[in-house]
Amino acid sequence: MSFEQISLDKQEGIALLTLNRPDRMNAFTTQMMLDIVAALDECDADDAVRAVIFTGAGERAYCAGADLGGGAATFDYDKRTDKAVALPDGVAPTPVRADGSIDWSHPLVRDSGGRVSLRIFEAKKPVLGAINGAAVGIGATMTLPMDARLASDTARYGFVFARRGIVPEAASSWFLPRLVGIANAVDLCYSGRLISAEEARDKGLVQSVHAPGELIDAAIAKAREMTEHSAPVSVALTRHMLWRMLGAPHPMSAHRWDSRAIYSRGRSPDAAEGVTSFLEKRAPDFTASVAEDYPWFDEFEDAPPYS
Amino acid sequence: MSFEQISLDKQEGIALLTLNRPDRMNAFTTQMMLDIVAALDECDADDAVRAVIFTGAGERAYCAGADLGGGAATFDYDKRTDKAVALPDGVAPTPVRADGSIDWSHPLVRDSGGRVSLRIFEAKKPVLGAINGAAVGIGATMTLPMDARLASDTARYGFVFARRGIVPEAASSWFLPRLVGIANAVDLCYSGRLISAEEARDKGLVQSVHAPGELIDAAIAKAREMTEHSAPVSVALTRHMLWRMLGAPHPMSAHRWDSRAIYSRGRSPDAAEGVTSFLEKRAPDFTASVAEDYPWFDEFEDAPPYS
Amino acid sequence: MSFEQISLDKQEGIALLTLNRPDRMNAFTTQMMLDIVAALDECDADDAVRAVIFTGAGERAYCAGADLGGGAATFDYDKRTDKAVALPDGVAPTPVRADGSIDWSHPLVRDSGGRVSLRIFEAKKPVLGAINGAAVGIGATMTLPMDARLASDTARYGFVFARRGIVPEAASSWFLPRLVGIANAVDLCYSGRLISAEEARDKGLVQSVHAPGELIDAAIAKAREMTEHSAPVSVALTRHMLWRMLGAPHPMSAHRWDSRAIYSRGRSPDAAEGVTSFLEKRAPDFTASVAEDYPWFDEFEDAPPYS
Repeated sequence: MSFEQISLDKQEGIALLTLNRPDRMNAFTTQMMLDIVAALDECDADDAVRAVIFTGAGERAYCAGADLGGGAATFDYDKRTDKAVALPDGVAPTPVRADGSIDWSHPLVRDSGGRVSLRIFEAKKPVLGAINGAAVGIGATMTLPMDARLASDTARYGFVFARRGIVPEAASSWFLPRLVGIANAVDLCYSGRLISAEEARDKGLVQSVHAPGELIDAAIAKAREMTEHSAPVSVALTRHMLWRMLGAPHPMSAHRWDSRAIYSRGRSPDAAEGVTSFLEKRAPDFTASVAEDYPWFDEFEDAPPYS
Repeated sequence: MSFEQISLDKQEGIALLTLNRPDRMNAFTTQMMLDIVAALDECDADDAVRAVIFTGAGERAYCAGADLGGGAATFDYDKRTDKAVALPDGVAPTPVRADGSIDWSHPLVRDSGGRVSLRIFEAKKPVLGAINGAAVGIGATMTLPMDARLASDTARYGFVFARRGIVPEAASSWFLPRLVGIANAVDLCYSGRLISAEEARDKGLVQSVHAPGELIDAAIAKAREMTEHSAPVSVALTRHMLWRMLGAPHPMSAHRWDSRAIYSRGRSPDAAEGVTSFLEKRAPDFTASVAEDYPWFDEFEDAPPYS
Repeated sequence: MSFEQISLDKQEGIALLTLNRPDRMNAFTTQMMLDIVAALDECDADDAVRAVIFTGAGERAYCAGADLGGGAATFDYDKRTDKAVALPDGVAPTPVRADGSIDWSHPLVRDSGGRVSLRIFEAKKPVLGAINGAAVGIGATMTLPMDARLASDTARYGFVFARRGIVPEAASSWFLPRLVGIANAVDLCYSGRLISAEEARDKGLVQSVHAPGELIDAAIAKAREMTEHSAPVSVALTRHMLWRMLGAPHPMSAHRWDSRAIYSRGRSPDAAEGVTSFLEKRAPDFTASVAEDYPWFDEFEDAPPYS
């Protein structure tokens, strides 16, 4: 599969997803959104991929935000020049109905940054960011649903939305306070100021800071540590459980999932291999497939509560 | 507008709200609650106000908690001497019905600290605390929904409720664990012990500590940093999004808000000015009014979910 | 009351609950789960107990996880050899129905670790962990709903589930991110790696680290600090409010509880004593009983929302 504005390189279990518009500081477009979603679909379906690492092409930026080539009309959906990219056949060309009201279910009304962050939220493999330079606007917010953000010491983070007359997007109002705390989140989003990689690390936004030449290797090492001893289906399910329970109202929600997941995985060959290899003091050889053995996931949704 | 137990001083975009009962260590009363709510209503309606800073009169206390002048009956609603202050015309003088049951919707049953903290939660401008001395009981809990708490190095924090035979109020059971983590929250609230400004900062309760003579200037500087480059309507909406999403079950809740807010603000003159000023490397001149241009807020409530 | 796999020792207001299978590194079993639940029931009903401290017998482990004596079938419920322990009379011996479908409400399907952590979640007294050695698997996750975890410097924490081919349980997907943040939670659970007591403290998982010989005394001192000046019923209610509100969608949920709790406790003798003793600068003598005076708790569930 090939992409227009990103590249995807798979090597030894790691998929490196590179935002690839270096002449535009990897600025975000509707096409880039579609590329990212398709690449994550591909990675989830490929059992050879154990983790995904996002980075940006070139040395200046990870992603400088929305492409401002549209000037003052950049964020005005009705004047966007890239509408055709995002519209399936048969859908009205505008969300504005004949009577002037707005069809809020129209695809053009959906925040495109949110389509990226929600897709990362649903990923079945760990997703890491190797933040090689400026991460501004959607370049900052798209990294929040990732499992780890490693930054070059040249990186900068900026939640600049209020300075552009808009608001934080990509579901960042949900993710950011859970990552850095509400006090840091409001400070960064009201002011829109840029912060260094070090300040980002001190606030919990970035997990570690590296020399530019060592960033990708550090991200690969972290991705391997997260996956090399663990059963792929266990990691996929653990990922969904931890991120989803972050918003759940009561630990009983987790107990319902736990009970089904432990029952299902506990009788799987992976559990037998996990215990046996541990008792035999050898490395495990897990065989269950994320692509094939994950259908039981949806059955949780209608689980009855325990009393 | 004048107030009985607070003062409100507006200068250069900042409203300084001073709890003003220094002879009583600014102890909290029903009248003070009504004054605070009215002052925040005024600030939200005044576009000249970009941020609100709470502080206390005198050098000893920010607010020493509920006024204990009522002695042993202080927290017994049926014996309160200030009932008349809080009761609208036509409302029964007590929540206890003739049959002895309690009318839980009666205004006298509502926790008055919660009426302050919920009003701060709904504020359309950043709210900061300049904690100039003891912040105890409601003096501590009312500061939790603020966007930042700056403390004098003479300040003390105390969540003393269990020592008084009551419980943490002002919705602090919701705010405090989100600010300092559950382990710190239970420790502070079970023991009821007083902590220094430094310990409060180390726990994330206070964002910075200052010499007493430099506290107000530091708070003003922080308030300016939060607002000076940002569109007022963007800040108002960002504030509501970040604080509300702190309790939302799923990032899809944020995506629904984002999509509407980006659509609405993206076509506004503020967005055009935000992008244009950035491309022209000049300061922006935002024109949208919080007081006048915020009616589209309520429309989010009935937004359909995306699938 | 006596127990098979734990011991319970009450002295001067503190109940020390010791996981007592030192020859098996205090590995977790169905019987141990039943013992822990029964011991917490006893502690909640005994007003002489102000706090509960969990620890492990021996020097090597707090709890090394599920007992792997069952080998490869350890986590396969249908092959478990201890089923009879957990099944009430009259319940089918297996959750698998004649048609092959699974009865998800069957007690054998419930995660037994979750039954421990949900019982700790509901405790009416502060619960602390004195983590004297390895805390692995359920040995790690059962400590998350505790109010504080103090660790020996020889302790190790491991969320090893993905390495065994299963998933984190005991509702840990709900508790762990709220305790250490989502970035640490995913890192620990994907990799399944062991961490030292110091790393656990730096991540917020452990509140303090001690020499082995000083651990129990430190835990007792902390338990006393949490309870000695506070009204027992206030602590019980504060515990339920803080932990439950950690998942609540909006501060209005807390305001509803606050209003009822302040009304109920504010007219109690404990509130009169709390204020009077403070004004008289003497230690309070609280008389309300957790065992007897806590019936008004359930009435919160159907409280109407305030508008």
